[in-house]
Amino acid sequence: MIEIYDTTLRDGTQAENFNLSLEDKVRVALKLDEFGIDYIEGGWPGSNPKDEAFFKEIKNYTLKHAIITAFGSTHQAKYSEPGEDPILRALVEAETTHVTIFGKTWDIHVRDALRISLERNLELIGGSVRWLKEQGRTVFYDAEHFFDGFKANPEYALKTIKTAWEAGASCIVLCDTNGGTLPEEITQIIQRVIKEVDHIRLGIHCHNDSELAVANSLAAVRFGVVHVQGTINGFGERCGNANLCSIIPGLVLKMKYECNAGKKLSMLTSVSRFVSEIANLSPNKYQPYVGESAFAHKGGVHVSAVQRNPETYEHIRPELVGNVQRILISDLAGKSNVLAKAKQFGLDIESRDPVVMEIVAKLKELEAQGFQFEGAEASFELLMRKAMGQIKKFFDLLAFRVIDQKCREEDPPQAEATVMVRVGGRTEHTAACGQGPVNALDNAIRKALETFYPELKEMSLVDYKVRVLPGRPGTGAKVRVLIESRDKEEKWGTVGVSHDIIEASWQALVDSITYKLMKKC
Amino acid sequence: MIEIYDTTLRDGTQAENFNLSLEDKVRVALKLDEFGIDYIEGGWPGSNPKDEAFFKEIKNYTLKHAIITAFGSTHQAKYSEPGEDPILRALVEAETTHVTIFGKTWDIHVRDALRISLERNLELIGGSVRWLKEQGRTVFYDAEHFFDGFKANPEYALKTIKTAWEAGASCIVLCDTNGGTLPEEITQIIQRVIKEVDHIRLGIHCHNDSELAVANSLAAVRFGVVHVQGTINGFGERCGNANLCSIIPGLVLKMKYECNAGKKLSMLTSVSRFVSEIANLSPNKYQPYVGESAFAHKGGVHVSAVQRNPETYEHIRPELVGNVQRILISDLAGKSNVLAKAKQFGLDIESRDPVVMEIVAKLKELEAQGFQFEGAEASFELLMRKAMGQIKKFFDLLAFRVIDQKCREEDPPQAEATVMVRVGGRTEHTAACGQGPVNALDNAIRKALETFYPELKEMSLVDYKVRVLPGRPGTGAKVRVLIESRDKEEKWGTVGVSHDIIEASWQALVDSITYKLMKKC
Repeated sequence: MIEIYDTTLRDGTQAENFNLSLEDKVRVALKLDEFGIDYIEGGWPGSNPKDEAFFKEIKNYTLKHAIITAFGSTHQAKYSEPGEDPILRALVEAETTHVTIFGKTWDIHVRDALRISLERNLELIGGSVRWLKEQGRTVFYDAEHFFDGFKANPEYALKTIKTAWEAGASCIVLCDTNGGTLPEEITQIIQRVIKEVDHIRLGIHCHNDSELAVANSLAAVRFGVVHVQGTINGFGERCGNANLCSIIPGLVLKMKYECNAGKKLSMLTSVSRFVSEIANLSPNKYQPYVGESAFAHKGGVHVSAVQRNPETYEHIRPELVGNVQRILISDLAGKSNVLAKAKQFGLDIESRDPVVMEIVAKLKELEAQGFQFEGAEASFELLMRKAMGQIKKFFDLLAFRVIDQKCREEDPPQAEATVMVRVGGRTEHTAACGQGPVNALDNAIRKALETFYPELKEMSLVDYKVRVLPGRPGTGAKVRVLIESRDKEEKWGTVGVSHDIIEASWQALVDSITYKLMKKC
Repeated sequence: MIEIYDTTLRDGTQAENFNLSLEDKVRVALKLDEFGIDYIEGGWPGSNPKDEAFFKEIKNYTLKHAIITAFGSTHQAKYSEPGEDPILRALVEAETTHVTIFGKTWDIHVRDALRISLERNLELIGGSVRWLKEQGRTVFYDAEHFFDGFKANPEYALKTIKTAWEAGASCIVLCDTNGGTLPEEITQIIQRVIKEVDHIRLGIHCHNDSELAVANSLAAVRFGVVHVQGTINGFGERCGNANLCSIIPGLVLKMKYECNAGKKLSMLTSVSRFVSEIANLSPNKYQPYVGESAFAHKGGVHVSAVQRNPETYEHIRPELVGNVQRILISDLAGKSNVLAKAKQFGLDIESRDPVVMEIVAKLKELEAQGFQFEGAEASFELLMRKAMGQIKKFFDLLAFRVIDQKCREEDPPQAEATVMVRVGGRTEHTAACGQGPVNALDNAIRKALETFYPELKEMSLVDYKVRVLPGRPGTGAKVRVLIESRDKEEKWGTVGVSHDIIEASWQALVDSITYKLMKKC
């Protein structure tokens, strides 16, 4: 059984653009617990008030399985006794059963960064571990820069971990702190360590600076490591930590190891997206196992093969990790992709029907304008139904006007929209305000149409994205707007493209409303 | 000397959202040639008109070093002679000196997908390679699904590549088509192949579905492969191909192999960003070696250590790959980060000056509102200078109004903006049109201010980005606008945040203009 130790809440938050509030940290911890992660490193209590607050707050929850750990370092050299160091005391005050401390392995850093003797560093390591054990804590020891340190001075590197192990650490975690180590170095060094230190329990903590963190972590397990540290989606300092979303399925599905999170592997995709969402980062489409594109097929040859037998171009069944197969609509779309989509939408088209080539041509024309249907399947379905003559026009937009103004420097801006729509023979001309011009337009359109179509009240917007397209630089560039809407039953995405953000939003809103109205017919 | 074979233009374009026009493909090819890539796979001439046009167009250029290759498959079973197959003929008509064809390795696929006998598949492989050789081509043979095929039926897998080798292929490229193979499997199988086939020249082509493509490619080289296929940034079907931007520095800097592109390694970051830019994809911040965050330091401990000695938290010197070290401004920013930035901006602040803590507090407040300064250093510099009382107010905005309207369904929308500004004692009230409301506002502001500050004519906007922030869903959400501006000397980034996109744009525009005016003082 391999132990999985997550440090998304501590090392993960060292990533650029990855910031979590106290509430976010609690939500992530609960999700990781549900997933079956064994250890959750909550933060560094000595370093900032948010991390301290987290340890207080998380005590109000009963976790199902996970153990919360507090992170810190060996005590500072200026204190003669470990218990005098406020950093180490803060670690104990976090009141976790388990703590993880890191210490220095690399001789040069002991001399240059800590500016102490090699011997004194061993005292800090041994003393800190022993003191924490005396306070009743289970201690994990992170050997910082272990592999670099070992390459520079193997004897000293071994001494540091022997000291921690003999002082009572429950696991010695070998860290590739700078992420520069190759898999063959990892395995050679681990073999040396196992030979030199008796009965040691080893862990691994890799960084991804050479794009090798997953390979290094898996190689370490193959050579005897039983505890793997990493983060969800590989978030972390610089290029990130080892990505648990690839390590866990690699261990379980490919290497046939067991771990607790492996029993709930079908949660993997949702855990991955949940953490990105909480951190307000767009999920990486191309991410192995969990990315939106991980089982997406675009080339004509692949699409037809994968529909006959998924094993032809899929290394695992996407369901195993909670992901899904997708057939993409794209530039490379031939008839087979359009027919596959038609089938998915429940549309009955013969492959020889000339409307298929008409749809392919329309698609290419719109893609050249900057449209993209990969996140806007509802707009694509409307396009197909229109080509097939299967859709009626529910309303006509006669005119809109949006005014956004700021009359005094200190006042907030005010946005107002007017719209004129015609439904059947009747014209509705109305106005609404909003938070910004797009919201005002959205409000006015709904106000005008809800009198005719009360079911629109069931529908709400869940996401609104803007992408500036290349071409003319600056504020006059074309923009693509993607809107995601939902009602009680489902979610759907629509798209609009224009030089004018208001018009692009209008197009996507119109498609979204049309899709909702069409569903009822 | 390891050969580097780039397939960004062919396999890369199978990635979701990665689409290149003919002109883009030519620009990428020229950049790869300049970088020292040995082979550039230009496309599949049989499959679509754009790829055919590429091979015509690229002949108008004289490349310095790279050889362009055309890609295709072994001939179809329905033709008894290879020369009868239009797909194979199209490959020859591309008029490249080198061609790459793929053939089937995995017995099940031969039976189920091609629906031919195992023997007939060997005929297709041998016949196609021989015929292409007869047409004077150097032939690379891609053994599709080699590792999966080998695991299922090693004897047959070996037979397919022996057939291609004996028919005259110059290199046998072993493909992990589904990206599911582990490094230890790659190396074991390669050792078997080398034992079984005499004097064979081997290549490797990996996919990243298990986040192991770089490790697998490097392992293959270590065990005797001399030709590595991959793409820039790892673009490619599903989770992507093996990432040359990590493989090349791994081979050269860490494993001490030689390759031509390794001689121009300091171009690596610019090549990576160029390809993303051309494809209109935001570069991956966290990408190893070349990402914006790859040498970015955020935690207080790391920042101070890395400023003393970069080796403490950097696995290589960023200059080697054309990247730079960055100190981040963030949530975790303490005094040390603010002081490091001050130094960078040439500002003279004592570390005990209370203004430092004032800046830290202001920063936290703005970040809580949704501001982010990581791409908007000019806004951050202005914030610091304002706190230090070092900046004058160049102008006041008294009012703005933006009107965007569409009067008839068939007409394009019209955007107009009015602004009222005061400079010194004088008020300027003017109006301008634009492509969309933000552009109209931008035009009006410039028109109003250029009368007072003619140097604004030197300045132009190079990028405009919008990010919808989480919180209130839908069109009323907050947006963050990032603007990049330039003049003859430099580029600078500014930021604005509001529920109203016009106001957020206004804030970023004002900062951008203020920064320009400040530079002259």
